[in-house]
Amino acid sequence: MRIDILTLFPGMFPGYLNESILKKAQELGQLEVYLHNIRDYATGKHRVTDEPPFGGGGGMVLKPDVLFTAVESILPGGISPQPPGSFAPPLILLSPQGRPFTQTIAQELAQHERLVLLCGRYEGVDERVRQHLITDEISIGDYVLTGGELAAMVLVDAVTRLLPGVLGAEGAAETDSHATGLLEGPHYTKPADFRGWQVPDVLRSGHAANIAHWRREQSLRRTWQRRPDLLLTAPLTEEDKWFLAQLAEESVNSDQ
Amino acid sequence: MRIDILTLFPGMFPGYLNESILKKAQELGQLEVYLHNIRDYATGKHRVTDEPPFGGGGGMVLKPDVLFTAVESILPGGISPQPPGSFAPPLILLSPQGRPFTQTIAQELAQHERLVLLCGRYEGVDERVRQHLITDEISIGDYVLTGGELAAMVLVDAVTRLLPGVLGAEGAAETDSHATGLLEGPHYTKPADFRGWQVPDVLRSGHAANIAHWRREQSLRRTWQRRPDLLLTAPLTEEDKWFLAQLAEESVNSDQ
Repeated sequence: MRIDILTLFPGMFPGYLNESILKKAQELGQLEVYLHNIRDYATGKHRVTDEPPFGGGGGMVLKPDVLFTAVESILPGGISPQPPGSFAPPLILLSPQGRPFTQTIAQELAQHERLVLLCGRYEGVDERVRQHLITDEISIGDYVLTGGELAAMVLVDAVTRLLPGVLGAEGAAETDSHATGLLEGPHYTKPADFRGWQVPDVLRSGHAANIAHWRREQSLRRTWQRRPDLLLTAPLTEEDKWFLAQLAEESVNSDQ
Repeated sequence: MRIDILTLFPGMFPGYLNESILKKAQELGQLEVYLHNIRDYATGKHRVTDEPPFGGGGGMVLKPDVLFTAVESILPGGISPQPPGSFAPPLILLSPQGRPFTQTIAQELAQHERLVLLCGRYEGVDERVRQHLITDEISIGDYVLTGGELAAMVLVDAVTRLLPGVLGAEGAAETDSHATGLLEGPHYTKPADFRGWQVPDVLRSGHAANIAHWRREQSLRRTWQRRPDLLLTAPLTEEDKWFLAQLAEESVNSDQ
């Protein structure tokens, strides 16, 4: 996959991109990241990229002309119309007003050969960019960041680890929290006794079916306790539902 | 504010921390970040930090002894009990199983003089760390990342911009999306006419009350269209509710 990132701060990225899984994905040839400094597409002596908003109110807004020029330089012909037989990649604005990023969206994006990410900054981008340039807008959560750069890194990270061959023994994508629609339950490793706190017997029993059963129940229990909202959409078996009914009953009894 | 970050990948951070607002906050003396490599607290020839989980299943789990040693070295005496008159900072594990990060939590955390952030990796941390070491656990969203490092950066960014004096003309914290409980409406900047697409007249009218009124309605309209869930908790005036009732009526009429 090729990912182009448009940002006013390209220096924020290499530290993150050149370690661990993202480094490995690039070495494997599964990921290529191109950083583009938005300022390089501004004109005039001062290469102005942002101006105060019409109507006042403080903050600065990224100028539409600079962003259109940047995107059209990276994608000759722009996002649309494309020559017959070619496909325009998604052009995604990272902004707090976007659709909330989820694992499902990560899986969708991982199917593309190329993505273009546009990092908002300051008070955001001129509205005409939203209306006439981008094809998608994504937010990583309901909090305020100083720009879209961290959101772009989150998106690159979440998508890259889904590409073929990227996750080796270091991770197990299919059982992770949110990959199953549930939170993961507890894990334990050596030492078996640490300061008197023991690893649960079942995990040392060597009985694979009991371990799988215990883990499923722990995962359901943790999701029930911490994020019951996830249970509304998680795929559940009849046995899962039976176990959740027991948890509900316990909870009612303990309230009395 | 002092923030200590425990990570296996300290090299991921400086690129982000040394640009823009976070750089400025450090220059102003409002933010000090200390990076601690978890591996420095592992013992033995190979300084092993992670081992396979008891019970099998793939992936690696961060060892409890290494993490306890790391935290107790950074916070002599550990998190509790503390000497009389002193306060232990929040020790926050970044993990997909944590409570979802919001702007309200960012505001809470910004009140502390010190935070300690522990970045999970691989399959996560040994459960005894969760039970006996950390005081809080936070997730930045319902997606799977390769580790807690990006989540730690998100938290540092969101908290730092709330510290006194950090945001100058570059941002206007109080009107940002999620700071008001609503999404921000559109912004426009120069040029007023870009490729035939005009800035709305009201923004060029110079009439402050009309502009404020238009912006509030745009903000409500965007939230209604994109994130109606936010309207359940946003502080709304009677006039806001009246406008939302109109939007609801429009929407019913357009469905017929």
